[in-house]
Order: sequence, then structure tokens, then C-alpha cells
Amino acid sequence: MKSWAKAHERIDDLQLNGLKIIQNPEGFCFGIDAVLLSDFTKVKDGATVVELGTGTGIIPLLLSAKTKAAQISAFEVQESMAEMAKRSVDMNGLGERIHIIQDNLKNYLKYFEKSSVDVVVSNPPYMSGTSGIHNDDDLKRISRHEILCNLEDIIRVSASMLKPGGCFYMVHRPNRLVDIVCLMRQYKLEPKEVRFIQPKRDKKPNIMLIKGVRGGRADLKYLDPLVVYQENGDYTAEIYEIYGNAKIDVFDKRGEIGGTE
Amino acid sequence: MKSWAKAHERIDDLQLNGLKIIQNPEGFCFGIDAVLLSDFTKVKDGATVVELGTGTGIIPLLLSAKTKAAQISAFEVQESMAEMAKRSVDMNGLGERIHIIQDNLKNYLKYFEKSSVDVVVSNPPYMSGTSGIHNDDDLKRISRHEILCNLEDIIRVSASMLKPGGCFYMVHRPNRLVDIVCLMRQYKLEPKEVRFIQPKRDKKPNIMLIKGVRGGRADLKYLDPLVVYQENGDYTAEIYEIYGNAKIDVFDKRGEIGGTE
Repeated sequence: MKSWAKAHERIDDLQLNGLKIIQNPEGFCFGIDAVLLSDFTKVKDGATVVELGTGTGIIPLLLSAKTKAAQISAFEVQESMAEMAKRSVDMNGLGERIHIIQDNLKNYLKYFEKSSVDVVVSNPPYMSGTSGIHNDDDLKRISRHEILCNLEDIIRVSASMLKPGGCFYMVHRPNRLVDIVCLMRQYKLEPKEVRFIQPKRDKKPNIMLIKGVRGGRADLKYLDPLVVYQENGDYTAEIYEIYGNAKIDVFDKRGEIGGTE
Repeated sequence: MKSWAKAHERIDDLQLNGLKIIQNPEGFCFGIDAVLLSDFTKVKDGATVVELGTGTGIIPLLLSAKTKAAQISAFEVQESMAEMAKRSVDMNGLGERIHIIQDNLKNYLKYFEKSSVDVVVSNPPYMSGTSGIHNDDDLKRISRHEILCNLEDIIRVSASMLKPGGCFYMVHRPNRLVDIVCLMRQYKLEPKEVRFIQPKRDKKPNIMLIKGVRGGRADLKYLDPLVVYQENGDYTAEIYEIYGNAKIDVFDKRGEIGGTE
């Protein structure tokens, strides 16, 4: 039997349509942010979806099971991450629906016409290039810091690729909200929906989900906040519901809500 | 004994330093928003404070008791409202500290030098001029709708009046967040702190408090959300604490949190 994982890698069962994912526990593993973003993202049947910066490929895999998207393309600039994500796609037999593009998302016009995509989704690096503590490990640095692309690149490229009326879904840190909504408006990707994620009840948010519509009318709607942990430290019922049957501890604790990065 | 109130007006006891306020129950009465904004606003001893659009004068009255501001000036464009607010100030013997300016705030340069004010505070009309249902009553319309000034006027005038490092405090509706933060950044009044007010626990916010600093560095902090009502419909402990000993039902139910305007 062919072995899909390399040395140091492991294969995790996502407990969703039999999906599995390859991860390197010493590298950048997916976090709760990606799972929440996949749940927040709405995709119409037959739609074309592009993800900007896929890492392990978790979001295309989850969206392939949760939606009837026709095609899901995902940019990943790091060669070794893109190669591992592609192996996960092939291992799941999803090579027809999911395309991993190993390139900088700024080169998007090599792959997509302007105004041609229905949905863009992104879980981008949270830390601006010059701030925060950098990891020693370059792979993690590039996944977490705005080194090879920044927030403006993500929003500019998304606005350019999306059809008029097309939707943009992103997860980010609430302290970047001003940058996010000002850039979205600047590029005519009007913020339409926001959901704040609170680690505990009545506590300030530490993750935000935002939806924009290309050319949308100004009016921001809020969803009820999502609370992650109960007082006793267990996950809330809504978190269990979002994870479905998935092994909730699959995600990387270092990328978890409340972490410092 | 001199009667401070006119026909149709009433005098409410604010239960704070003996303060009283004149209101016309048929006109625009102050709401919980003003009380929350007064609590959110931080004023250093001896500071100069300007309010843009004071209505009944509630915010200068509360700030006179809660802070050691040297001078509190408050614009009110509507002659009858300004006159009533001035009577409230005089009734409380606060004519030395509080100045009601009956003029459009856009004429601020008649009264203040640029970059001369420590704190600007505003509870502006929430509804854009062309949206929402207009009240028959012009007084309430002008207090609630952007007829004589709009959000951009409020932010532009605040940024111009404030000293570098001076603070701007505003209460508004969360659905205007994108307009608010983009205009604040445009006028270099960087959003630094936000607090969302939730009518009930785990519910989406319907009021927001925002602080900006003139020339501040980009980084938005969140306070823990403020919940107004308990599950049984009573106010929460924090709301009682903010109101202090004040008769909590003084405020106008029509302007209350969760209302349609």
C-alpha cells in the first residue's frame, strides 16, 4: 500500500466524508480559525471558489465536503506546504475538484481572469511583517507573518478576481479590524457581515470572521458572537456542532484561539 | 421660588451630586446611550471638553459630576433644545463650567482654535439623512437623523479641534462601523478602543462605543462586551453600577437599546 505521509508527517482523520489530511506536527498545522472560516463560508452549488494561502489544504478539503462547489483552487506560495497539500488532495481522490497552485497569490492573473470567481476565502497571516515575535522556523513565519503578501494584497487580489456580487470570506484578528474594513471599502469589497469569536462568555473577542461583497451597499450586519469555551474549559455546544464528528483535538494547539500568534 | 421648567416639561433627579435635568417628555429625551457614553469617556483633571450635539445637556451634566474637567462646552443647533439645556445648566449652578453653544457644530472655528481641545465627545444622530422612517416632529428628526450635520462633519470637526494625542469618544450603531472607522482613519483620528453593547448575553450588539486618538498608532483594543439585560429582563449588575444611584427609568424608552431608532 502506497504511503502518503513522509517522515515526520502524520495523517489525521477529519471524520467528515472519510476525509483525511497530512500534517507535519513540527510545521504549521491548521487551527480552529480554519474550521470556523469553513463553517462561515457560504458557497452556491456549482460555484468557483479560490482560497488565498491554503497551508495544509484544510479549507479546500472541508469545503469540498460541506458545499457543492464545482472547482476549488488554492494558492500556496511555499513549495513544501503546497506539495504536502497536493498529496492530501490526491490521497482523498479530489484532484478533479481541488487544484493547489504553488505560486504567490500576487501572480493570480496567470491563472484567473478578472471578475471571474464566485467566492474567495482566506485565512491569511495575521501578523504584520514587522511586528510580533518571529518564529525561527521559516515555514511557520511565512504562514503567520505578512512576509510574502500582506493584507492589502489579499484584499486587492480578491476584489479583482471576484465577479460583481461575488463574496469574500476571511478570518483575522479583531485588532486589525480598522485595516481590514478600510482596505475592503477602498477596493469596493464592502463589509457586509461580521462575527466575533469570544474565548469565553462576556469576554472580548480574539478572532473575527468577515464577509464582503464586491460592489455591495454599505450596511454591516452582525451575527451573534460565537463562544468557544464553557466556564469549565469544555468546548461549547456550538463549537462541537461546527466540528461535527471531527476529532476536535486535531487542530494545532499553538494556532488555537487565545494563543499569542 | 423660581420655576425652571416650562409647560409640558418635567424635572428629573439624576441622583448624582444633586444634579437635576429638564426634559420635555413629548420631545427628545436622553437615552441609555448617553449614560453609557459618559461612563466610557475618560477626562483628565483640568481638561477642556467639547460635546458635539448635546440635546438635553445630559452628557455635560454627567461629566461635570464624574470628572474634574475645567470647561465643558456643548454645541446644540436647535434653539429650543439649546435653551432648555442652558436652563438645566443654570438650574444646577454650573454656568461657570458648562457652556451651551447654540450653533451648528460646523461653525466651530467661531468658538475654538484648531488643535486646542483635550476631549471631544458625541452622541450624534444615528440615521443617515435619507434612510429610516422620519419622525413627524422636527426636533426629534434633527436629533436622530443626519439632517443638519452628518457623521463626516462630526469626525472632521472633532479631528480639527483636538490637540495631537487628544481623545474622541462616540456612541453609535454597530451597522455604521465601517463608515465610522474609515472616516476616523481618513481624518487621522485613529480608532483605539471599542466596546460593543449587547442587549442580552451571547446576542449581537446594537450599540457601540468607540474611542479615537488624534494621530494615534493603528491598533484597536476591545473591551469586554457590556450586556444590558439579564435573561429575566432585569438590568445587569454592570448597568446598575454605571447608573449608580440614578433613577434608571429616567431615560426615554423610545431611545432605549433595542429600539427601532
